[in-house]
Amino acid sequence: MPRQVDHQERRETIARALWRVVEQRGVPHLTMRVVAQEAGISLGQLQHYFASREAMLSFAMDFSAEQSTLRVGEGLARLGDRPHPRDVLRLMLVELLPLHPGARATSRMSAAYVLEALHNPDIRERAREGISHGRSVVEQLVRQAIADGQIGADRDPVVETNLLLALTGFTTLLELHVIEPQDVLAAIDQHLDRLFNSPS
Amino acid sequence: MPRQVDHQERRETIARALWRVVEQRGVPHLTMRVVAQEAGISLGQLQHYFASREAMLSFAMDFSAEQSTLRVGEGLARLGDRPHPRDVLRLMLVELLPLHPGARATSRMSAAYVLEALHNPDIRERAREGISHGRSVVEQLVRQAIADGQIGADRDPVVETNLLLALTGFTTLLELHVIEPQDVLAAIDQHLDRLFNSPS
Repeated sequence: MPRQVDHQERRETIARALWRVVEQRGVPHLTMRVVAQEAGISLGQLQHYFASREAMLSFAMDFSAEQSTLRVGEGLARLGDRPHPRDVLRLMLVELLPLHPGARATSRMSAAYVLEALHNPDIRERAREGISHGRSVVEQLVRQAIADGQIGADRDPVVETNLLLALTGFTTLLELHVIEPQDVLAAIDQHLDRLFNSPS
Repeated sequence: MPRQVDHQERRETIARALWRVVEQRGVPHLTMRVVAQEAGISLGQLQHYFASREAMLSFAMDFSAEQSTLRVGEGLARLGDRPHPRDVLRLMLVELLPLHPGARATSRMSAAYVLEALHNPDIRERAREGISHGRSVVEQLVRQAIADGQIGADRDPVVETNLLLALTGFTTLLELHVIEPQDVLAAIDQHLDRLFNSPS
């Protein structure tokens, strides 16, 4: 089905153009016209692939989330057969923060998507589902680590999951250079050490 | 100096109109034209008060930060003469999160300002200074609590300050209803309990 493949490739080219606009120029410039220009196609051609700015944003967000999942998958492969849950959680957290160009693009894309979500019920529901799914994955890891005695049995899995997700709050501090990457990694390691060294 | 007062009042009216646009319609709609309309004045009149969108945003952010400081001040007054640092930190953290309409307006205004900051060096420097100042206040509280034996002497004040600030990461989870206010307060209380119950 070469036509199908071409269509998907073109959509990915557009998603990458959209990313570049978010990364280099910012969300206020994120219009169909600007994205078409960046992708080197006409506005009409862009509208052939995406009927609306919303459809384009949702595709770009899905694509962004897939790239992020791929990066986590590559990291997991490097951790070997039976990775320690501490290392898995660290990998996931670090990948959510703007600590390298790929993750920064995803992070800025997410921030833009969340701002859109506040005033668009469809996008809000999609964003909520995406983050809820990620949250469930983390909670499952925490529950398993408690069951396996790697995290203390006195820890509440819901509270611990929420505290882990809150660490994405480092995003703004990093983007504005209030603190540096090594400070963020030190704080994340301290938090994980306390979680996994708690008495079981 | 009635003229001076009128000028300041008009600027605050404009800042509140800008807030309403951010709160109700979102950042993509935040233009000088839309703000003038919301404030019930002409674009020319608005430009008399603010030469640019950037100047208008910076004023609105300062105003927003002042309102936030006022709310924290009122909370501190309720805590009495010598408040416990745990209560002071809890008050500050809760006021940074979108847990009530006033704080939500400030929170959305900040998110919008940070997104602007990524692509505007002047705004970035102002935003960085504002957050760095807030961070210093928290670090001072943590250092004093360590000196007073309320936080364990083995805790690193820089790491603990950064972990406290990371709790603002609950913003997105709250805005998208991934978790609810009571979950956030439970997690914040758990974090503060561990910090203040650490051995000294």
